Amino acid sequence: MKKPWAGRFQHKTSGIVDAFTESVSFDRRLWKFDIQGSIAHARMLGRQGIIPKEDARAIVKGLREIAAEIESGKFRFRSDLEDIHMNIEAALTKKIGPAGKKLHTARSRNDQVALDLRLYLRDESRTIIEHIKRLQKTLLELAGRHMGAVMPGYTHMQRAQPVLLSHHLLAYIEMLQRDKKRFGNCLDQMDVLPLGSCALSGTSLPTDREYLARELGFGSVSGNSIDAVSDRDFALDFLSCSAITMMHLSRFAEELVLWSTEEYRFIEISDEFTTGSSIMPQKKNPDVAELIRGKTGRVYGDLFSLLTLMKGLPMSYNRDMQEDKPPVFDAADSLNACLGVLTEMLPGITFHTKRMLSTAGEGFSTATDVAEYLVRKGLPFREAHEVTGRIVLHCISQKTDLGSLSMDELQSFSPLIGEDIRTVLDPSDSVKAKKSYGGTSPSEVARQITFYRKVLK
Amino acid sequence: MKKPWAGRFQHKTSGIVDAFTESVSFDRRLWKFDIQGSIAHARMLGRQGIIPKEDARAIVKGLREIAAEIESGKFRFRSDLEDIHMNIEAALTKKIGPAGKKLHTARSRNDQVALDLRLYLRDESRTIIEHIKRLQKTLLELAGRHMGAVMPGYTHMQRAQPVLLSHHLLAYIEMLQRDKKRFGNCLDQMDVLPLGSCALSGTSLPTDREYLARELGFGSVSGNSIDAVSDRDFALDFLSCSAITMMHLSRFAEELVLWSTEEYRFIEISDEFTTGSSIMPQKKNPDVAELIRGKTGRVYGDLFSLLTLMKGLPMSYNRDMQEDKPPVFDAADSLNACLGVLTEMLPGITFHTKRMLSTAGEGFSTATDVAEYLVRKGLPFREAHEVTGRIVLHCISQKTDLGSLSMDELQSFSPLIGEDIRTVLDPSDSVKAKKSYGGTSPSEVARQITFYRKVLK
Amino acid sequence: MKKPWAGRFQHKTSGIVDAFTESVSFDRRLWKFDIQGSIAHARMLGRQGIIPKEDARAIVKGLREIAAEIESGKFRFRSDLEDIHMNIEAALTKKIGPAGKKLHTARSRNDQVALDLRLYLRDESRTIIEHIKRLQKTLLELAGRHMGAVMPGYTHMQRAQPVLLSHHLLAYIEMLQRDKKRFGNCLDQMDVLPLGSCALSGTSLPTDREYLARELGFGSVSGNSIDAVSDRDFALDFLSCSAITMMHLSRFAEELVLWSTEEYRFIEISDEFTTGSSIMPQKKNPDVAELIRGKTGRVYGDLFSLLTLMKGLPMSYNRDMQEDKPPVFDAADSLNACLGVLTEMLPGITFHTKRMLSTAGEGFSTATDVAEYLVRKGLPFREAHEVTGRIVLHCISQKTDLGSLSMDELQSFSPLIGEDIRTVLDPSDSVKAKKSYGGTSPSEVARQITFYRKVLK
Amino acid sequence: MKKPWAGRFQHKTSGIVDAFTESVSFDRRLWKFDIQGSIAHARMLGRQGIIPKEDARAIVKGLREIAAEIESGKFRFRSDLEDIHMNIEAALTKKIGPAGKKLHTARSRNDQVALDLRLYLRDESRTIIEHIKRLQKTLLELAGRHMGAVMPGYTHMQRAQPVLLSHHLLAYIEMLQRDKKRFGNCLDQMDVLPLGSCALSGTSLPTDREYLARELGFGSVSGNSIDAVSDRDFALDFLSCSAITMMHLSRFAEELVLWSTEEYRFIEISDEFTTGSSIMPQKKNPDVAELIRGKTGRVYGDLFSLLTLMKGLPMSYNRDMQEDKPPVFDAADSLNACLGVLTEMLPGITFHTKRMLSTAGEGFSTATDVAEYLVRKGLPFREAHEVTGRIVLHCISQKTDLGSLSMDELQSFSPLIGEDIRTVLDPSDSVKAKKSYGGTSPSEVARQITFYRKVLK
Repeated sequence: MKKPWAGRFQHKTSGIVDAFTESVSFDRRLWKFDIQGSIAHARMLGRQGIIPKEDARAIVKGLREIAAEIESGKFRFRSDLEDIHMNIEAALTKKIGPAGKKLHTARSRNDQVALDLRLYLRDESRTIIEHIKRLQKTLLELAGRHMGAVMPGYTHMQRAQPVLLSHHLLAYIEMLQRDKKRFGNCLDQMDVLPLGSCALSGTSLPTDREYLARELGFGSVSGNSIDAVSDRDFALDFLSCSAITMMHLSRFAEELVLWSTEEYRFIEISDEFTTGSSIMPQKKNPDVAELIRGKTGRVYGDLFSLLTLMKGLPMSYNRDMQEDKPPVFDAADSLNACLGVLTEMLPGITFHTKRMLSTAGEGFSTATDVAEYLVRKGLPFREAHEVTGRIVLHCISQKTDLGSLSMDELQSFSPLIGEDIRTVLDPSDSVKAKKSYGGTSPSEVARQITFYRKVLK
Repeated sequence: MKKPWAGRFQHKTSGIVDAFTESVSFDRRLWKFDIQGSIAHARMLGRQGIIPKEDARAIVKGLREIAAEIESGKFRFRSDLEDIHMNIEAALTKKIGPAGKKLHTARSRNDQVALDLRLYLRDESRTIIEHIKRLQKTLLELAGRHMGAVMPGYTHMQRAQPVLLSHHLLAYIEMLQRDKKRFGNCLDQMDVLPLGSCALSGTSLPTDREYLARELGFGSVSGNSIDAVSDRDFALDFLSCSAITMMHLSRFAEELVLWSTEEYRFIEISDEFTTGSSIMPQKKNPDVAELIRGKTGRVYGDLFSLLTLMKGLPMSYNRDMQEDKPPVFDAADSLNACLGVLTEMLPGITFHTKRMLSTAGEGFSTATDVAEYLVRKGLPFREAHEVTGRIVLHCISQKTDLGSLSMDELQSFSPLIGEDIRTVLDPSDSVKAKKSYGGTSPSEVARQITFYRKVLK
Repeated sequence: MKKPWAGRFQHKTSGIVDAFTESVSFDRRLWKFDIQGSIAHARMLGRQGIIPKEDARAIVKGLREIAAEIESGKFRFRSDLEDIHMNIEAALTKKIGPAGKKLHTARSRNDQVALDLRLYLRDESRTIIEHIKRLQKTLLELAGRHMGAVMPGYTHMQRAQPVLLSHHLLAYIEMLQRDKKRFGNCLDQMDVLPLGSCALSGTSLPTDREYLARELGFGSVSGNSIDAVSDRDFALDFLSCSAITMMHLSRFAEELVLWSTEEYRFIEISDEFTTGSSIMPQKKNPDVAELIRGKTGRVYGDLFSLLTLMKGLPMSYNRDMQEDKPPVFDAADSLNACLGVLTEMLPGITFHTKRMLSTAGEGFSTATDVAEYLVRKGLPFREAHEVTGRIVLHCISQKTDLGSLSMDELQSFSPLIGEDIRTVLDPSDSVKAKKSYGGTSPSEVARQITFYRKVLK
Repeated sequence: MKKPWAGRFQHKTSGIVDAFTESVSFDRRLWKFDIQGSIAHARMLGRQGIIPKEDARAIVKGLREIAAEIESGKFRFRSDLEDIHMNIEAALTKKIGPAGKKLHTARSRNDQVALDLRLYLRDESRTIIEHIKRLQKTLLELAGRHMGAVMPGYTHMQRAQPVLLSHHLLAYIEMLQRDKKRFGNCLDQMDVLPLGSCALSGTSLPTDREYLARELGFGSVSGNSIDAVSDRDFALDFLSCSAITMMHLSRFAEELVLWSTEEYRFIEISDEFTTGSSIMPQKKNPDVAELIRGKTGRVYGDLFSLLTLMKGLPMSYNRDMQEDKPPVFDAADSLNACLGVLTEMLPGITFHTKRMLSTAGEGFSTATDVAEYLVRKGLPFREAHEVTGRIVLHCISQKTDLGSLSMDELQSFSPLIGEDIRTVLDPSDSVKAKKSYGGTSPSEVARQITFYRKVLK
């Protein structure tokens, strides 16, 4: 089949070039958005009298039939027709005759693909926000279910202070809340219609871009045609949002992997979400969490791929930009898959709360409470910190723990210590005392849960 | 000097460890923000009765004196005191005695550094937004000054259609407008006070975080202490905003380099902003633009560095996170320097508008206008495109151009062609015709200029 | 079908997990290497008496039949069988019965996949080296064909000094020569057999790894089983080689794009290797070169994806590592495609050598020759440089060029100038004079061509 | 001071440009290599009669004095002199008069900086190889000291099979061995002299580049002057070697952090190599290992930074390339620091080998040995795997372990089981049995240790 731009050429493109430059093998997934855009465009052309109204109607009807064919798997994509746009236009002309040749009036593939990709990413961003919300709800349900369970809080991967398991889970809800906001900002930035910018300079035909924006649900119309066809900020915004969300998931995945080890034994993931070994019969591996961690690198790679591509490209559209789609598709698929499988996996996880509580009490995790106790007794914090440090060192050398020291021993470190110190040595008491805003006390955590119940309703 | 956490240790840290782990060599630039945060914290501690009011006053006074010493270059930073926080606290205690040991009550370096970095990035983001605005104004001034100048618009780096130089410059104003909005979103995301989260779990002391937020100008208070000390999203947001802005600058820099070549000869950069060669006496190089292009990789690297660092880190604070500062400082410095030098350089650039106009007329750049002319005469666009393609091919084989064809020749391609076609062959006419919204016609471009004059006022 | 590791599990894996963790959709392309490894393994097991000889023979026969089925497209891959390894093993057991269950004796998927990926990358690396060599030969042919053609050499994209086109093309042959050597080093590093390391600790069965290495063509046997299953250095080596080679191609692609512009007009790419515009009938775009430039970002992303994945992974195999394959496959495909299409495209490029020569003479490109002339006359270089700079400045202000200055004018800048200066002002003479080793003189370039003719034979 | 290229310019560069384009603030660390190169160059100029022999001698003497001044801290670097090259040349001319103006004959900053950076990286690569070797020796010493200690081997961070601690440590020696080889290849690739390529085209003066190569210790002379000034492959090679080595260190650092947790309790790092908390008095944090992990991102960022910079740069030298130095310096410093501190830290680590042994016996870690036992009894491996899986499941449901099952219970799963199975259930026996080449048996590990003792001598 003749290329739609063949007029000026004396020789056909080489087969190796067709294979190298075609994009329909991956951009076919934009078909729904391409047809959505073309229908709006045809209507606009008809309304404005740029093409006859009956031609517009025929185009819309034809495009709808093509959509149905693609949906049902009957449509045959041809790589010699380069991309999704030309595949659909060629099928349209075959179906409805000369009217089909009028569809591409007052537009270019440059603004068409900028539109399609925005429609696609708008759709994916909304889906991702929904998926994040579902994951938050699942986390919130777990936080509610395990209210009161105490676990060790860590810094430097060393036990630091006891915290509520629910508080720890809520930390991820916070991250995901920022992620949703970030994707929301991304949606906001991409809410601009590029269609009608044509190749790069606009058109001499009397188009109505406001109508197009309304039809396609965009809040505004791009103000500069050169920028509109050169701009992939919206894709970069999407990729950096995806990378940051994946980073959050990778941190949670790391914890799920750690907590599943025999060393931690904080959780057990259900059989349905683990796999075994081809050689070691006893193995039960947290593969899902590992793969989430691994896919993080992939999404980072997608982001850097597009940043590199765009670096130093002069105005306006350059063919390099065709390579914007593989990273964008890969990131969207990876992120959606990770969010989905994590949300399904979490409810089946068993939390060994007894083990968590017992480890929370080990390792001098209430030493900070001792220091704050001494502050309340009037010691400057730095001195309180040092006194407590010496008590800890004493315990280590005596192979004992804070709770086992006698009052005499304790008072030998500071006469400020009295019997009431006993109330700060227990991890559960420690947790209860952390009543500062955002702290780990049950009252604060309950407040956070209530807040998110409202937010996520 | 003894480490503030030495109580529990029997041996001093090794010298090689001091050198490896210290951060004061780079985090000292946070001093202003560290003192700002400590003053607010001390006041809060005094107000809440956690420390005596007179101690709070002494701390504030002492910190102000330290600030003055640092400002005047008299302060001696010590790398054995690890970081900026400990340097200042140690100096304070030396200056005001035991009261200084009370400053660190109810806080940890974990929430302290999270605060300092936010204050720093809030400041840098605001500065960058101002710098972007200045660059936009400079571009707008150029766009206004050169209103009417026609240049070739490019796609695939091939001349595509004539556009207004002002339209081209406005494309960058659009990009920068998105950049400002993106940094604004970034500011919004970081507008949350972490101080008071302490090590990771909050505190048992009766702090008032709302007061801290008001004092330090934050819109809200972090709701989860574990997240607050683990979170570096605000730094990643800053870095991805910086990377995207640098990408825009790299595109403009690329064009400035291209336009300065003898091949393009579109501009001449002034002597003040170019440099010569150590060996070739005739050289005048666009070094500034080249370095902007080159620094783009650096800022990308900064973003990738922090994304990698954060990947898979379990809760909550881990020492890896100390390495968040070098990339953030480097990106802020690089971006500010590029914005600044570009803004200074632009006004001295001479635009060779005659050369631009004459090249805009070459290369069949009005062929699309011919096609649209044929559409207006009733030909379906695809046929119009093909007819025009054949006319172009004819011109190439005859080594002539569109404007030199006779009416007979033209009509041999299509009987629809009439004398009125002459009005679409001139690049200036072509530009004037592109009246679609956001298009390159003088009326549209004037509208865009007016819009931005208002926005940037 | 039951998972091969199902013995220890009470519940089947969830469908969403099967979909999330399967890899057969992409690792199926390893089938040939998987079967090659399994045949060698079965033979070794038989030879060592670990399994009966007749079982070994049955396995080999069965695997060969499966290979034929896959080759002919008859084999049905099943994603519920997770990966290529289990797909083949399951088909084998179905085909030959219980003997098939003995194939996995004394190996694990951990060492199996490490083997398969090495075999695959060994194969790809050799192919790439061949492709690079073909590209070099094509470049060498062009360099030979255009021997004598003078073009402007650039620094900072400013015309600097005249050079031979052949010299310029040879610069790329040099880069590609390093690339081949780098891939050779990569082959060297991966020439180690991992098979027989089993899960991570080796086996108690009397395997013969030396035999396996000989059968599979490896130069040595991995010395540490834990490292052998944890190691992906060979994939990172491959990706960094690929990234650097793509960087070289991107530089050449950039030049092809530049040289195709109307501004440069140095080359014309043939119709077969260019494409047109959907809207602008006159356009002829260097898409192939643009896409090569664009795919560079993709391969960079692949490298960073795997670097990120491997960061901080504890010993030994972790499931994250399954994600090593998509970037490796993508990089190999992208690089091979780019090398292939570039090699095909180059012979059809027309070099406008007259235009090159005429531009080589513009822009004071022989100013350095003037300076070296003055050095030969005894002036210190720095003074010679300054004198020449002043002559250039004079020409610019007089809107003339070096060749048009009278002897009086010239001598007013330095009495050392004599009539013989005329011989250094012509670009062709300038080129001829650069006889230093590796310089651009025809004699030197001829030497370089001869050298590479021998190397590439 | 006048710029050395000022002849052709009418106006001085702007102050903001001086600040933006200067590199002496970071490239001053190249001073030793710059002087080394200049001394060789001056001697060559003298030998070849390009400058008088007495001038050459004066230059060499002057440069040596400058070197002494820099070494002793007396030299004043000036940023208005742009870079290290011009700082030294200006000082030379001030010191020895007109002869100094002859040093830059027949060279350009383009080939000069290419030389300096190669000399620097050659030096750093050799240092790094030495540092890697020292780290290997330290690991080998630990492996020898702890010979016989059994620990759990992990896959998916789940206990998989018992291994020797020495075997585990040797895995890192293997990785580092590859790293040394990779840096060796890097040295090999950079062993080419670029000096004498001048700006890009060579020179008309009768230089002797072979002499320069001998003087400066290069194995060969660059064959193409355009490539020589455009090439930064050697820096990319260095950065990708550094990134991969850092990846290895990050894996070890991760394990050190994990092993230091209360959950693992495999090691205790000495007080000298840990730090405490500003708020939690009991904390002892593995900061050094965390920072090594964190710095990995930084070195990755350095690699990405330079790859991005070089992408799509046309020939030959472009000013962007000045930005090659910061990432290269940063990576070299980071890697050297990490190697150094790790080597110092390791000898002071206490390995809790009893705890390691006891955990190695938990979690059914000898299940694979049971399966291999059944294979030796004649069961196909897949069936042996399944039988063992069922035994494990039985143990889990009965809350018992393999060693506690009665012979009756065991035989109920397979009649092939006999009393001799007891010899495969103990982790120490399991380790001893893994006699395959590279396996974890004491005999194999001893062989590996002996091998590396020889290699590292």
